[in-house]
Amino acid sequence: MIYKRKVQFYETDAQGVVHHSNYPRYFEEARGYYLEKIGYPYERVREELNTDIVLIELQISYKKPLYFGDNFEISFGISDMDKFFFSFEYSVSKGNTIIATGKTRHACLRIDTRKIISIPDILRSKLNGT
Amino acid sequence: MIYKRKVQFYETDAQGVVHHSNYPRYFEEARGYYLEKIGYPYERVREELNTDIVLIELQISYKKPLYFGDNFEISFGISDMDKFFFSFEYSVSKGNTIIATGKTRHACLRIDTRKIISIPDILRSKLNGT
Amino acid sequence: MIYKRKVQFYETDAQGVVHHSNYPRYFEEARGYYLEKIGYPYERVREELNTDIVLIELQISYKKPLYFGDNFEISFGISDMDKFFFSFEYSVSKGNTIIATGKTRHACLRIDTRKIISIPDILRSKLNGT
Amino acid sequence: MIYKRKVQFYETDAQGVVHHSNYPRYFEEARGYYLEKIGYPYERVREELNTDIVLIELQISYKKPLYFGDNFEISFGISDMDKFFFSFEYSVSKGNTIIATGKTRHACLRIDTRKIISIPDILRSKLNGT
Repeated sequence: MIYKRKVQFYETDAQGVVHHSNYPRYFEEARGYYLEKIGYPYERVREELNTDIVLIELQISYKKPLYFGDNFEISFGISDMDKFFFSFEYSVSKGNTIIATGKTRHACLRIDTRKIISIPDILRSKLNGT
Repeated sequence: MIYKRKVQFYETDAQGVVHHSNYPRYFEEARGYYLEKIGYPYERVREELNTDIVLIELQISYKKPLYFGDNFEISFGISDMDKFFFSFEYSVSKGNTIIATGKTRHACLRIDTRKIISIPDILRSKLNGT
Repeated sequence: MIYKRKVQFYETDAQGVVHHSNYPRYFEEARGYYLEKIGYPYERVREELNTDIVLIELQISYKKPLYFGDNFEISFGISDMDKFFFSFEYSVSKGNTIIATGKTRHACLRIDTRKIISIPDILRSKLNGT
Repeated sequence: MIYKRKVQFYETDAQGVVHHSNYPRYFEEARGYYLEKIGYPYERVREELNTDIVLIELQISYKKPLYFGDNFEISFGISDMDKFFFSFEYSVSKGNTIIATGKTRHACLRIDTRKIISIPDILRSKLNGT
């Protein structure tokens, strides 16, 4: 899937580039977009399934900077999923230039107990596109 | 009261100065420090009184920039309080230079209903320093 | 002009609502959108005119909260402009509900000297829609 | 080295915990503290050496959440360094509980050209504590 975004001024730092702490936020936006596109937005996951999706692993390689006003896109998707965990992989690019790559690994929690649960079936089938 | 702080790199923007959206966060830090100093930290307000403090008005005048690594201080205190609302006023300075001034106005909500309540007596007396 | 936006998860706080420090960022996004729509994006202002636009006054009234996933819109425009300063006013709404109103006041700086300059003619005429 | 910090309210999210995008910021704060403690604050690196330190790899494992008001500490240090790159490793803990671990890898750039340079000798010897 492709998520498109423009760099906001408040995301830049005194080096004149996007601060690295914004990339995990861009990835989160992309995942939110993904859940919307598969017809199961995260608001519904939280309300209907009493489930929070949490991040347990984050990995990012920063190759080139993004500058204020840049239009970039994130090409991403689910790279693996088992009973409890699933991962997304991301490639951030601007035109033909790879800006960064990343990976996130997630688990599901019951909102009220904050305990890890297996991925709810309906969420799993939606994530799988089935 | 005086709250001291150093500018972090991630708070700067591509103009090379602290982004304006950090000042409301600095003010929030100062208020948190205030509640600690009067012996009633905001964690306790939330847990013991089932009360959230919310911001209803924000006003900031930006006079001079802050740069990465700057040490600055916020001189601040409560400027008025009635049954439902209270305000803080702030002066941010670096050495003898006034960087910014600001004001925030607050109300209390019951956490479970999200309805405005009168300022709980114990919080009021603590805020008043009585 | 109308700027539309959806609340991101990372913009929420432990009260379950959008943290107040995001509204100045939403306003900045709206201004960036404005400059784009009038054909003079801020990237060009910075590069072609050697000019930074800075915020000197910020005022926000918070009336109702925004929640994760909310779609909201900002109705906004320039409310006054003289030789050196110009202001924007904003109304943030979700459906028929006013969420917040705000005002920002701005000046122009030469990027290299960081000194206030009069609003460059081309920027003024663009802002005026003339 | 140990860097101590308290969770700010604006760092929490609607799950009631610190949002994951703050950990890279905590690590940056810790590195800034490190440079101060070794007598070569990042402000001086930038000014005296015309050098930016950039992040090229980020890795974080999130094990337990941090909540508003938590006091935590980051135990961290340099884990490797060659001609061009150096890494820090971090362990975030609250009391006896490990909250997260992380690693960052860095390179140096000349500020004016944005080209990677070998780690300046004086910075290298300071980082090495020699």
